[in-house]
Amino acid sequence: ELNMNQTSAPIKTAKEELADFVEIFPILTNEILKELPGMDMPPQTIAWVEKMINVNVSGGKMNRGLTVLHSLQLLVEGRQLSRSEIFLANVLGWCVEWLQAFFLVADDIMDQSITRRGQPCWYRQANPISNNGTIGSIAINDSFILESCIYILIKKYFRNEPYYADILDIFHETSYQTELGQLLDLTTQPNRGDFSLFTLNTYRRIVKYKTAYYSFYLPVALAMLMAGITSTPAFSTAKDILLPMGEFFQVQDDFLDCYGSPAVIGKIGRDIEENKCSWMICQAILNGTPEQINLLKKHYGLDNPTDVELVKKIYGEIGLKKIFKDYEDESYAFLISKIKSVRIMPQEVFIKLLSKIYKRDL
Amino acid sequence: ELNMNQTSAPIKTAKEELADFVEIFPILTNEILKELPGMDMPPQTIAWVEKMINVNVSGGKMNRGLTVLHSLQLLVEGRQLSRSEIFLANVLGWCVEWLQAFFLVADDIMDQSITRRGQPCWYRQANPISNNGTIGSIAINDSFILESCIYILIKKYFRNEPYYADILDIFHETSYQTELGQLLDLTTQPNRGDFSLFTLNTYRRIVKYKTAYYSFYLPVALAMLMAGITSTPAFSTAKDILLPMGEFFQVQDDFLDCYGSPAVIGKIGRDIEENKCSWMICQAILNGTPEQINLLKKHYGLDNPTDVELVKKIYGEIGLKKIFKDYEDESYAFLISKIKSVRIMPQEVFIKLLSKIYKRDL
Ligand SMILES: [Mg+2]
Ligand SMILES: [Mg+2]
Ligand SMILES: [Mg+2]
Ligand SMILES: [Mg+2]
Ligand SMILES: [Mg+2]
Ligand SMILES: [Mg+2]
Repeated sequence: ELNMNQTSAPIKTAKEELADFVEIFPILTNEILKELPGMDMPPQTIAWVEKMINVNVSGGKMNRGLTVLHSLQLLVEGRQLSRSEIFLANVLGWCVEWLQAFFLVADDIMDQSITRRGQPCWYRQANPISNNGTIGSIAINDSFILESCIYILIKKYFRNEPYYADILDIFHETSYQTELGQLLDLTTQPNRGDFSLFTLNTYRRIVKYKTAYYSFYLPVALAMLMAGITSTPAFSTAKDILLPMGEFFQVQDDFLDCYGSPAVIGKIGRDIEENKCSWMICQAILNGTPEQINLLKKHYGLDNPTDVELVKKIYGEIGLKKIFKDYEDESYAFLISKIKSVRIMPQEVFIKLLSKIYKRDL
Repeated sequence: ELNMNQTSAPIKTAKEELADFVEIFPILTNEILKELPGMDMPPQTIAWVEKMINVNVSGGKMNRGLTVLHSLQLLVEGRQLSRSEIFLANVLGWCVEWLQAFFLVADDIMDQSITRRGQPCWYRQANPISNNGTIGSIAINDSFILESCIYILIKKYFRNEPYYADILDIFHETSYQTELGQLLDLTTQPNRGDFSLFTLNTYRRIVKYKTAYYSFYLPVALAMLMAGITSTPAFSTAKDILLPMGEFFQVQDDFLDCYGSPAVIGKIGRDIEENKCSWMICQAILNGTPEQINLLKKHYGLDNPTDVELVKKIYGEIGLKKIFKDYEDESYAFLISKIKSVRIMPQEVFIKLLSKIYKRDL
């Protein structure tokens, strides 16, 4: 069937879709920056906001952001999206990227991280208006500004849509869920050498909240709102699949924190140094001998290369690579079987996401 | 005229109004806490959130929070508010207090403050689930949680009101304005000893954004939304009076940072140590001799009691107490004349606020 509607967009390749997505970033950034002179902000403040947005929002893999458009395309089942629908889906996609930037800027301070996306974390970068010194704790306020940008953009493009308040509600709820996840993450390692909280149950709760809601449920739910879906069971079904998918994604992130190449993952793993309740340490405790666990208690959570090496050596002896591979296969089969039972919305929405993460570069 | 409406509340004294306001704080806190067990949050996490809210949201002067009810009462001109209207105005008042808590928790980290409301700043308090150490940078995420509480409460009580989206918009906009003010504040003192940015113009821009919008305009604008006011000129008129009022309030705060008693203001002034673009230093530069200004350049912005003493000695020589008193009288007269010209809404709304700040304890 030929679509003669002038406003319909031609079917795009993945590369063209990515180009469309990347292309609107400067448009959105400009929407934010162009208000600042009228608010009497001095040039160096505008330059600060511009640099801060560019450094922190762009340069990621953009999987979360692209997922809004991909999901919407599959949700409308066959009908071609108009140019305007594509643009709006991508605006929401960028809002997810802005949300992630908000969290990452603060997370890097709280985790004392060194690098992010192949460059120093924002709080460690040079302060452009000081003779010396870094951005430092000003990055806290910068993270707030990144969050505010979300609501500037949503208001600009969605204020008159009937689902405007629904979009705001879901961004608020997802932010709160992520913050609770961060709180769990930051309080599950109260004392070094105490492994009592490092259980898989605790781990799963942390990652569901700190990662899965915003990375997997949010982009799909936004597409569902744009598609006019209002049925609560549809949103529940989506959650039921996307939260476990997000859990696997975080397990993978934890695995890569230890075994991924910094050149590929863009950051230097620090979960061992930071005494994190990582999937790796939980599995090591489950699968190690009492002697191995005692050694881990002595050396885990110390910011010292020789201790880190020793922890990694024990991980090797326990065979965490094989345990991860088995877990990956299992979780893949589990998700496929869950997806096959979905009737309330197109299964392809979930298959598409699944295919993105299970071929992630290891 | 007798009001026979059963749901109308009797006219209250200021003391009873304050009691009403204070009374609903635990109700609102409970609205937030009661959701957490169903979200699978462990008891120590719920206890953390509870303590964090109690320490940071309550215990302030609550002027901002009470202003919503006071303004609404004056806006409905004579009609008695129902119990439900009073409750809802106080909910929005507490949301303003929650917004302030969000900003203060982060501001104290960024300013390296020591005390707040007579106790150690939240980030310096003991970490309740660690054997030693403080809350530290976890307070960053705690500040995010305080912000999220605003939207939980607004959704709970206002989701079905026609002005729901307007309330959300104004909280978003005010947050952004405050964040820009914080950015200005944090970047106006790039290098110690450089006074080039310490001008009254720069100062006024900083305080309009970092203080006046959220402390003065927001509570009144919320009352206006509740009162059903939709006229843009009314909101402009309110801004036109409330932003200069907020500016004077911050000048007073800067004066008290230097000359107020810590027992009265609940915090230990650190503007001199932190090299802040304070009203005091701006006026000292305007009114001091070249010799005095050179001495200030040498000693301002050092975290050292003898330097701070010297700065205060020069302030005394320049006569900043008298300059402040004159400025206070002038700004009072200026605001009164502005208020007298208001026709679009009751002048009493502004007079009430003015009377609160111009009798503030010095
Ligand atoms: Mg991190
Ligand atoms: Mg983290
Ligand atoms: Mg990680
Ligand atoms: Mg401060
Ligand atoms: Mg400050
Ligand atoms: Mg102050």
